[in-house]
Amino acid sequence: MIGHLWLIGIGTGSLAHLTFEGRDALRKAAVILLPQKGPGKDDLAGIRTRLIRDSGSTARLVRFDYPERDPALPYQIRVSAWHDEIARRWQAALAERPPEGPVALLVWGDPSLYDSTMRIAARLDPAPVLRVVPGITAIQALTAAHAIPLNTVNGPVEITTGRRLRDHGWPAGAETLVVMLDGEAGFQHLDQDGFDIWWGAFLGMPEQITEHGRLRDVSTRIVERRAAARAEHGWIMDTYLLRRLPDGVPAV
Amino acid sequence: MIGHLWLIGIGTGSLAHLTFEGRDALRKAAVILLPQKGPGKDDLAGIRTRLIRDSGSTARLVRFDYPERDPALPYQIRVSAWHDEIARRWQAALAERPPEGPVALLVWGDPSLYDSTMRIAARLDPAPVLRVVPGITAIQALTAAHAIPLNTVNGPVEITTGRRLRDHGWPAGAETLVVMLDGEAGFQHLDQDGFDIWWGAFLGMPEQITEHGRLRDVSTRIVERRAAARAEHGWIMDTYLLRRLPDGVPAV
Ligand SMILES: C[S@@+](CC[C@H](N)C(=O)[O-])C[C@H]1O[C@@H](n2cnc3c(N)ncnc32)[C@H](O)[C@@H]1O
Ligand SMILES: C[S@@+](CC[C@H](N)C(=O)[O-])C[C@H]1O[C@@H](n2cnc3c(N)ncnc32)[C@H](O)[C@@H]1O
Repeated sequence: MIGHLWLIGIGTGSLAHLTFEGRDALRKAAVILLPQKGPGKDDLAGIRTRLIRDSGSTARLVRFDYPERDPALPYQIRVSAWHDEIARRWQAALAERPPEGPVALLVWGDPSLYDSTMRIAARLDPAPVLRVVPGITAIQALTAAHAIPLNTVNGPVEITTGRRLRDHGWPAGAETLVVMLDGEAGFQHLDQDGFDIWWGAFLGMPEQITEHGRLRDVSTRIVERRAAARAEHGWIMDTYLLRRLPDGVPAV
Repeated sequence: MIGHLWLIGIGTGSLAHLTFEGRDALRKAAVILLPQKGPGKDDLAGIRTRLIRDSGSTARLVRFDYPERDPALPYQIRVSAWHDEIARRWQAALAERPPEGPVALLVWGDPSLYDSTMRIAARLDPAPVLRVVPGITAIQALTAAHAIPLNTVNGPVEITTGRRLRDHGWPAGAETLVVMLDGEAGFQHLDQDGFDIWWGAFLGMPEQITEHGRLRDVSTRIVERRAAARAEHGWIMDTYLLRRLPDGVPAV
């Protein structure tokens, strides 16, 4: 039923971080599918509709209700059942009036990075022709806000989640680690003398805040600013980059 | 002398991958510094000038000659001396007529990823006010071209160079590895049954070519297509993503 499905990376949600390909895709889409989460649960809804307006898109907006995850199910099964249900809701939302052309979904950042939209799309039957429009990730927004390189000279970079950092500690051999999806400021549990951190919340948005320094100097401040910002806005999205200090560098 | 320096990520070099912030920065820059690499050595020169034109920028274009690296010096010192020399040439190129406003440099992909422009800028004295405009990286261009997620569900991702892959082999614990700056198709030296590969060259450009599959099935084909494309165009830029197969998956 969905012949062509476009996943459009929208960066941090403003026109500034949208690419021209993204803008054109928003304009050429016949239908844009928009999630509807319960009241107070989706602070990004306003950003999405503003971006669609700013892009000059005249696509028909079709809303679908976002399902809850079933807390009774084990994690893997819960996520899988949830993805099935979202795919069903996309199709149900389009059932009444079939799309006149390409259907688009807006994806925060880049559709390839820690996002399930592609996995949900893989559940559609018949499979649509999938198009992915790349977007600026939170990682690029972070390094740009701090004006720092992501890697050391020709060095490796690891990207991970807050959960993995908590469960497994600092990854063997890593020198630069980017942590996403961390609701609990996992950097607190690392050796506070052994790492520099560059942290950012609401990157690319008017609310943007950043901090950086040796962990022992800024760790507490980040935890406090994070809590204050979360209380003020009712939600938060943050990311950070950790760089392991070369052995022997004294923690000044 | 350079009061404000803007490093503008230009993605894969077309307007399609430029962000609105990037376009506006190109337009508001007073001067754009452009490297000049000697005939036949810079196939990106045409792409850069075309993008500047397409962006509607009217900045004054100031060219500087790209220095050679001194092959007599040890690697680290050679790179460092080379960066010093580039910073000097930026300043020399602007000496005759000081910039009337912000000076911009175009950076392929995103300025934070495997690029030395930020490190060269750090050598300027007095230090300019630095602004980094994020861009779509070759990694996003690769995953978009293949319409694949970068990570497995909540899994980690490592980004590395071809040299590191050759020197150190598959990184301990990695499941997804993105390899950049690989002139020698280093995937050939991995267990050909243990990995899937998604490869792309000239990503986001009209010449784009991609391949994917189990290494044992596509490794030779990639090496051949790579050589043919390089011979045809005189140069090549390619990147690939490797995913380790879960243990026990038979190599069909
Ligand atoms: C579900 S992931 C989506 C990532 C997105 N696809 C991208 O490319 O950036 C959400 C996580 O991304 C990070 N993130 C996304 N947008 C952010 C922003 N504007 N500021 C800080 N972190 C952000 C946070 O770590 C958050 O937990
Ligand atoms: C010096 S690094 C610059 C990376 C750039 N800053 C970015 O964000 O993508 C050059 C490497 O990037 C990769 N690359 C850059 N552009 C590419 C493209 N259009 N297609 C394939 N690979 C590309 C290649 O691995 C190449 O060796």
